[in-house]
Amino acid sequence: MEIIIYIYNGMTMLDAIGPYEVLKNLKGTTIKFVAKEKGEITADSGFVHLNAKYDIDEIEKADILLIPGSNISFIQEMKDKKVLNWIRRIDETTQKTVSVCTGSIILAATGLLNGKKATSHWKPIELLSDFGAIPVRERIVEQGKFITAAGVSAGIDMAIYLANEIQGEKEAKASQLMIEYDPKPMFSSGNFLTAEAEIITLAEKKMESKAKQNLSLWNMLLNVRTLMKLNK
Amino acid sequence: MEIIIYIYNGMTMLDAIGPYEVLKNLKGTTIKFVAKEKGEITADSGFVHLNAKYDIDEIEKADILLIPGSNISFIQEMKDKKVLNWIRRIDETTQKTVSVCTGSIILAATGLLNGKKATSHWKPIELLSDFGAIPVRERIVEQGKFITAAGVSAGIDMAIYLANEIQGEKEAKASQLMIEYDPKPMFSSGNFLTAEAEIITLAEKKMESKAKQNLSLWNMLLNVRTLMKLNK
Repeated sequence: MEIIIYIYNGMTMLDAIGPYEVLKNLKGTTIKFVAKEKGEITADSGFVHLNAKYDIDEIEKADILLIPGSNISFIQEMKDKKVLNWIRRIDETTQKTVSVCTGSIILAATGLLNGKKATSHWKPIELLSDFGAIPVRERIVEQGKFITAAGVSAGIDMAIYLANEIQGEKEAKASQLMIEYDPKPMFSSGNFLTAEAEIITLAEKKMESKAKQNLSLWNMLLNVRTLMKLNK
Repeated sequence: MEIIIYIYNGMTMLDAIGPYEVLKNLKGTTIKFVAKEKGEITADSGFVHLNAKYDIDEIEKADILLIPGSNISFIQEMKDKKVLNWIRRIDETTQKTVSVCTGSIILAATGLLNGKKATSHWKPIELLSDFGAIPVRERIVEQGKFITAAGVSAGIDMAIYLANEIQGEKEAKASQLMIEYDPKPMFSSGNFLTAEAEIITLAEKKMESKAKQNLSLWNMLLNVRTLMKLNK
């Protein structure tokens, strides 16, 4: 079973590494981290760098395709017709096409989620409807072969769900035990629908301040219909 | 605030990336991924590669030092006096020295956990006692300035706990919300003490099969006292 994880500059590292850590433990699995070009990929923080050993031109099929999200750089990927066409092409070969966080907005920009329910990070989730998908505030949303996960850490839950679908309960449970995934956060502050207003405001401020460091993408985010025209 | 994450060949990627993703959202934080030598670090799976921009000779202090774990390669790090001495030296400058998974066994090999309670991944946890620490099967164990986390995914919970200690509840909660950490695994199979016997056996078999791919380290793991002599 070959799993392809698309990686790109500005991505959120845990979106990719969370699911990878669950899926790598399944039997007979190969995971390839694939970028537009081989070489270094820098995360949203600028603090951590992956080395891509494959570029998208080398990948023609996948059993599972995973698209991670980002704070603001997903906009960059949605502007890139080569990336969108590659995702459409690989999707034709997959058993499952999945996303984490704003990866679902990239996926929606390809048209593959047209008329389908999908989830995303709680902050930009409404953008999904600009690209034909129906935003749903759930941790994991499955529609046919598409599975979308909410923000960042939701990719771990999604990967266990996916593991159960593709290799059954025992493999999924063993992988969960191998990564000792018995979560016990000291606060229950991870859900937008129940978080304190003051914490939501602080989190939004932090994310916006980071996103505005790339002003051209930020302005495009504010005018998402401009972005849609670019894709026509 | 400068956070140093030590990375090495054979490490488990989520051990480092989980805490990083929580801590990077805190105010005024810089995170450096530091290896024995600059350049590429390959994870335990062989599927994913980090690029280290700093080597240990360049790092003389840290506010927080984090040591991630690995399936078998922690043994390699415990054999390396240069690494152990560097950890001891950096620890003298830290507010907190923390570990995830078998990172605690590396930490114990430095002598820093002598007589202290510590936790680790459920499978190799008893090794802690060979290096003077007292193994405790809890998700997070704090002893003075040392915080050790259980296996792999426990690093996320540990980082939220740490965030609360160093920057207070609001910052910790905002970071939790930014990564939408509202965990909902479909199975409750992540805890060794409550997992089904059949799942434990399967997980152990998978981990041993992977670890035995490096036979010299595996043999050393079976005879941990040989390893202790090497460190004298």
